[in-house]
Amino acid sequence: MKHKKKLATLALVSTLTVGSIVGGGGLGANAQGNQPSDSPNQGKIKNVIVLIGDGMGPSYTTAYRYLKDDPKTEQMENTAFDPYLVGMQSTHADDPEENITDSAAAATSMAAGIKTYNGAIAVDNDESEVKTVLEQAKENGKSTGLVATSQINHATPAAFGAHDKSRKNYNEIADDYYDEMINGEHKVDVILGGGTDYFEREDRNLAKEFEQDGYSYVTDREELLKDENEQVLGLFAPVGLPKMKDRTNEIPSLSEMTTSAIDRLNKDKDGFFLMVEGSQIDWAGHDNDVVGAMSEMEDFEKAFQAAIDFAKKDKHTLVVTTADHSTGGLTIGSGGPYVFNPEIIKQTERTPEFLAEEINGGKNVEAVLNEYVDAEFTKGEIQEIKAADEEDVQSVIADIFNKRARAGFTTDGHTGVDVPVYAYGPHKEMFAGHKDNTDLAKNIFELLK
Amino acid sequence: MKHKKKLATLALVSTLTVGSIVGGGGLGANAQGNQPSDSPNQGKIKNVIVLIGDGMGPSYTTAYRYLKDDPKTEQMENTAFDPYLVGMQSTHADDPEENITDSAAAATSMAAGIKTYNGAIAVDNDESEVKTVLEQAKENGKSTGLVATSQINHATPAAFGAHDKSRKNYNEIADDYYDEMINGEHKVDVILGGGTDYFEREDRNLAKEFEQDGYSYVTDREELLKDENEQVLGLFAPVGLPKMKDRTNEIPSLSEMTTSAIDRLNKDKDGFFLMVEGSQIDWAGHDNDVVGAMSEMEDFEKAFQAAIDFAKKDKHTLVVTTADHSTGGLTIGSGGPYVFNPEIIKQTERTPEFLAEEINGGKNVEAVLNEYVDAEFTKGEIQEIKAADEEDVQSVIADIFNKRARAGFTTDGHTGVDVPVYAYGPHKEMFAGHKDNTDLAKNIFELLK
Repeated sequence: MKHKKKLATLALVSTLTVGSIVGGGGLGANAQGNQPSDSPNQGKIKNVIVLIGDGMGPSYTTAYRYLKDDPKTEQMENTAFDPYLVGMQSTHADDPEENITDSAAAATSMAAGIKTYNGAIAVDNDESEVKTVLEQAKENGKSTGLVATSQINHATPAAFGAHDKSRKNYNEIADDYYDEMINGEHKVDVILGGGTDYFEREDRNLAKEFEQDGYSYVTDREELLKDENEQVLGLFAPVGLPKMKDRTNEIPSLSEMTTSAIDRLNKDKDGFFLMVEGSQIDWAGHDNDVVGAMSEMEDFEKAFQAAIDFAKKDKHTLVVTTADHSTGGLTIGSGGPYVFNPEIIKQTERTPEFLAEEINGGKNVEAVLNEYVDAEFTKGEIQEIKAADEEDVQSVIADIFNKRARAGFTTDGHTGVDVPVYAYGPHKEMFAGHKDNTDLAKNIFELLK
Repeated sequence: MKHKKKLATLALVSTLTVGSIVGGGGLGANAQGNQPSDSPNQGKIKNVIVLIGDGMGPSYTTAYRYLKDDPKTEQMENTAFDPYLVGMQSTHADDPEENITDSAAAATSMAAGIKTYNGAIAVDNDESEVKTVLEQAKENGKSTGLVATSQINHATPAAFGAHDKSRKNYNEIADDYYDEMINGEHKVDVILGGGTDYFEREDRNLAKEFEQDGYSYVTDREELLKDENEQVLGLFAPVGLPKMKDRTNEIPSLSEMTTSAIDRLNKDKDGFFLMVEGSQIDWAGHDNDVVGAMSEMEDFEKAFQAAIDFAKKDKHTLVVTTADHSTGGLTIGSGGPYVFNPEIIKQTERTPEFLAEEINGGKNVEAVLNEYVDAEFTKGEIQEIKAADEEDVQSVIADIFNKRARAGFTTDGHTGVDVPVYAYGPHKEMFAGHKDNTDLAKNIFELLK
């Protein structure tokens, strides 16, 4: 791999071997029957749903299976993802300084089919804009949606619906969602996530502008579920949403946002493209917090299940699910013993982030632990939390949980390990085997032809 | 998952859904053409080759791709494994104390199709012997082989060719290879690896016994390559072989042992079953040594390629390759930066184990590093090595290399992450998607019917 300054997107896209797309008979059933047998592998694709578990490397999907295991049964139960595994993809960036990807470069690869530098939002190494699969879908007359639990102008959704030389230009990215038109229309019809801070600004009120153009603007769960407009901007937090374990009733789940998006988008007879991100698996990984990571895995699994349920009924919907990279170097087991003990993850009703906020807000450590965690803590553990500086309370609590679970971490950044790929629906076999993250976009471009 | 005391192997085997084995049209070609297009997915299976990279979790296969990347080309090149990826398998043990597997329980799962306790060598939770796929192949009149870079009576090969309540009973396991007969024949025809300590003992000389029964007995590379006997015992070290980077010309590579085994076994018109283990990927993982791990990945990759090359010519050979678990919690990147730098792995001609032996043998630290490592070391690094106790020299050197590479580790034990599965040849689609390690044996039993 050498680092390229120039990249011709169209040339890359055209390297696709068109003839091979018809595919074989699919993965076929297997001896254990845990591949879906009712999956239609052929036929015309109307809708494409891409779900990205940000940071969801193989240790996250496996740890989640350990967590969900029913101790009363003999086998370890499959997660909702398992029956749809078709392969793995490589994620490395084409950055002169860094060969492990960030979320922006990885999302650009999956959205536009090119390798680029870390921080790039659908631009190549020359900072030239590259067309995304969402834009291609809109050009084809399909409806489009972006759903995330981060601010909706965060790196992953941004790389599907905006263009910027830097992921940090949050305001400009939000502006892109409104300003960049395709065939006279805003290019994203359904926009659901966090981020009022970036859409209702002093210099510009994008929420009002979207409303003036016929979008609904909703800011809590009830409003979202009541509204039936085909175009909607839903922002449920100033920046990112609270994690699933910490959410109030006013915040929709990722599954609810996904279903709400599908219901709206599916009114378009020309079909739709939808990208759904479980954004904060990664954030918990950066925090080296196995409790937060598993909270967000559960939120993401339910959204995935909602997409699969729709696709099974629809029969013309392709669902592809993967990660952009892994985060934190999470390992199942650490420090020697051959044990991963997810019990503590079930025992705590809130994440370390939430517990730390309560404690930093002045509440008593024992009272907070008693209220939210169904486990005993040693005097030493409680003392450790009490002695921590305000900014360290969260990581001290996370570490106590990690040690009990025997979850290991090696970095507060990303790691380069290949990530699992799940697919269901027509032409899922195009995504099978070992792939690069650029192949995901290349395949979708091909299917949108 | 609850822990079972009783397991009825035959019942488990018979739960196979026989009708589903015919399968579909295989994985099919894909848009990028990186699935082998000449793979015969149907037809009768004559030979089965199972290759197990001990400890080869997804971070090992990915790190190896980073290592082998050609910096002069634009893409990151595939490893020999990549084109054959078909899925991943779960590895958890059914042990009352430990839910992360050891090599014995995992190998028993892959050899016999059951879950069992850690340490079990082809026995169930009641310590009752369970039939292995190698034994089934021998019952069917096929020739059989075991090849490893550990002592050949180590856990993984042992679980295919012996039965014991404990992996630690090395002598009894070696005895099993000779004593346990199937249809009046020794059940393993080709036995290649390390372990003279266990075969040429004061109480018993198994090498001599095998020779008396018509086996060749070879103890170095030249003897192995010259010998053409269909039955051979080859032991090339007292215990485990030196790692690839540290081998002299007298020690065969895993690829040479694999090819030698195939050449012999292929003389049987009834076909063969062969298990090949890259044993010491795991050992390097236990040592938290990225250099040793990548040395053994290369050795294993070449053996895999040799098996694939044979299968492509033969057209009636199924090759399945996977790992028993991951080890050490290896991560690609650690400590923050988005960088994995495998340069140091290429720069050292020997493993930390070898370098430490030289230094502990009395050689000067600078002289040893100068002779074997094409990199500059700081005074601090050299001082750290000099100051280390004899038993710590190896890990101090390994840590210096790990830091330069940015390889992270979290444990000196195993981790529970799912491992990749690669398959080529007739009915490879049976191994595709998400599987459990027991499915590997169940599928092979089914194919041997």
